[in-house]
Amino acid sequence: MMSVIDRLATHAETYAAAYRESAMPGTPRLSIAVVVCMDTRLSPYAILGLREGDAHVIRNAGGLVTSDTIRSLAASQHLLGTRSVMIVQHTRCGLMSTTDDEFRERLRAHAGVEPDFELGAFADLETSVRRAVGLVCESPFLPHRADVRGFAFDVETGELREIL
Amino acid sequence: MMSVIDRLATHAETYAAAYRESAMPGTPRLSIAVVVCMDTRLSPYAILGLREGDAHVIRNAGGLVTSDTIRSLAASQHLLGTRSVMIVQHTRCGLMSTTDDEFRERLRAHAGVEPDFELGAFADLETSVRRAVGLVCESPFLPHRADVRGFAFDVETGELREIL
Repeated sequence: MMSVIDRLATHAETYAAAYRESAMPGTPRLSIAVVVCMDTRLSPYAILGLREGDAHVIRNAGGLVTSDTIRSLAASQHLLGTRSVMIVQHTRCGLMSTTDDEFRERLRAHAGVEPDFELGAFADLETSVRRAVGLVCESPFLPHRADVRGFAFDVETGELREIL
Repeated sequence: MMSVIDRLATHAETYAAAYRESAMPGTPRLSIAVVVCMDTRLSPYAILGLREGDAHVIRNAGGLVTSDTIRSLAASQHLLGTRSVMIVQHTRCGLMSTTDDEFRERLRAHAGVEPDFELGAFADLETSVRRAVGLVCESPFLPHRADVRGFAFDVETGELREIL
């Protein structure tokens, strides 16, 4: 039986056959980076109507603004000219299903060593979106912080609600 | 004139109208997390044939395996049952256009303070993909490391080539 990775790589052959690089600039057409949770239910292309060439897409567990998110945004703004940041977190996120303490204990029990990172669990979605927007706005390493907005996607209704 | 974020949020209204959550599980159908560069030319949905509900999608500058990538993969495997990891980096990546030293100097000049992160620039794509796969395979915090594979997407031809 074909493994899942084999299956995805096989699809890539079809994609390559129709690919035209000239249609796609290396710098995002819309000068925007979107930060979105990695959740399987969220496709930023489908939700936001993005096409290849439009935006940088940064995704991690939660759609959090971590040190790595700032690294990616710094690359996006300094090297590739983006100026807007749109953050999308969502209801029923896995990061609301546990706590940092509980997750740390789970990793320690599995690995036998203390993890060197926190999960970033959160209890309140609005607070988490506000915090993420705040972290982008406060970073001295990002030249463009005037157009930074945060949203919550409702996985039950499919609605995207602006938080701030 | 409508701002770019307004435009994307407006598209989301159309999306919500057709949304059916029942069609989408919270745990990825294909039990896979893909780690892909944030680059605007790469849509993992289009390249790999992914649909909503299939996979976790983790993206950052380079498609690197950082501490935050391990955090996301740990959440993906421990909380949401994924077992495979597919890493996709690509030719002509912005992270090959500069060096960590040069980028640090640029950020320092802009911010007036020393950055607390490195860009993660790399000179050789194959080496970078191998390093990323190695970092996943070596992490004691991930229970599933038997199916981890690394690929390079060629932005000129659209071809996806397995590195290891």
